[in-house]
Amino acid sequence: MAKDDVKLLSMWASPFCMRVKVALAEKDIAYEEILEENIMGGKTELLLKSNPVHQQVPVLLHDNKPICESTNIITYIDEVWPSKPLMSTCAYEKSRARFWADYIDRKVHSAGKAIWTAKGEEEVEAAKTAFLDVLMFLDGTLGDKDYFNGETFGFVDILLVGLTSWFPAYEKYGGFKVEDNYPKLAAWITRTHARETVSESLANPEKITNFVGMLRQMFGIE
Amino acid sequence: MAKDDVKLLSMWASPFCMRVKVALAEKDIAYEEILEENIMGGKTELLLKSNPVHQQVPVLLHDNKPICESTNIITYIDEVWPSKPLMSTCAYEKSRARFWADYIDRKVHSAGKAIWTAKGEEEVEAAKTAFLDVLMFLDGTLGDKDYFNGETFGFVDILLVGLTSWFPAYEKYGGFKVEDNYPKLAAWITRTHARETVSESLANPEKITNFVGMLRQMFGIE
Repeated sequence: MAKDDVKLLSMWASPFCMRVKVALAEKDIAYEEILEENIMGGKTELLLKSNPVHQQVPVLLHDNKPICESTNIITYIDEVWPSKPLMSTCAYEKSRARFWADYIDRKVHSAGKAIWTAKGEEEVEAAKTAFLDVLMFLDGTLGDKDYFNGETFGFVDILLVGLTSWFPAYEKYGGFKVEDNYPKLAAWITRTHARETVSESLANPEKITNFVGMLRQMFGIE
Repeated sequence: MAKDDVKLLSMWASPFCMRVKVALAEKDIAYEEILEENIMGGKTELLLKSNPVHQQVPVLLHDNKPICESTNIITYIDEVWPSKPLMSTCAYEKSRARFWADYIDRKVHSAGKAIWTAKGEEEVEAAKTAFLDVLMFLDGTLGDKDYFNGETFGFVDILLVGLTSWFPAYEKYGGFKVEDNYPKLAAWITRTHARETVSESLANPEKITNFVGMLRQMFGIE
């Protein structure tokens, strides 16, 4: 077995898989992507064996050892492949990055999901407001910097940029534009999406929006 | 200012503060504890300034720099005071510890809260079952080991042990005993609570149970 046998158990529409793909691309790590194809049906034996607790993608298999949960995977990648570090070496700066990582992980995707699963105008409006409130703190901490770390695209940028692949769907079903509310954050989205490691890792936004439309039909929302 | 000016913004009943106190004790770090006294009322200016996003204890002030969120704080402590490390040096073992840390953080306290906020027998029964399901995976990964890391009391043990201070309240209001379901996990609780760094950091279980009873009255549950 080669030293770095790297496989990623993945699903094309998962924003959590996309962020791992960005990290792997930033580190120039060659890997094999193994897609869970049957999104609505059963999960593969390999996934169930690799992540018995959560039974979710992404899972990184490094020399056949499974690492689960995207933020955990990206932390692992940064430690095992230390060139082009994603994190500052300062313990305090690292604690700030972990703080925002946790904030993003707990709030962004769930607040976005509340928009496209909302039923009726009032519920949609409330979900939209809550989502924009979540972004407010991110816009505030980004401020006038190019990236969350400062001048370099790093850990927090990677965690958030994966999730932005679903933003067009939130905007469509919530009836708003991120750029009308947070131009600095919107400029960060444009800036990061222009990066090759990001553009090659994120799914097409139109395809995601169609996918969300299909989920809404399945859930009986429209 | 001395090199290590350490303060902990804390609340006596918070299991998340207790785990930070265990970590500080394990590392022999002298600190000043600043208690939020007015639990039901307003929060102090110092807390609001130190943790404007979540406005929650615990906050560690290290040379006046705030570090928020207990797991983040403990990771920071282990990095800044490296003697008696809480984590393995192996990247894979660390990823396993972070995985269980995240599992504990997302599931244990919220599943426990569902028990003591449940109304009616059926809801209590469902919450109890869900809580025991959460513990099942922890019992499984602990297995026959003394500690989650193996032979040494470490990161995952500290994260969980703080939360166990509320277990007697869950047992009382859920009508079950952890030891009847998971004797190995119950033995781990006894083992860790016998440790001086833990016993000096955890609030009295009876006091916690009374506190939970008071919260139930406030919430109109009983």
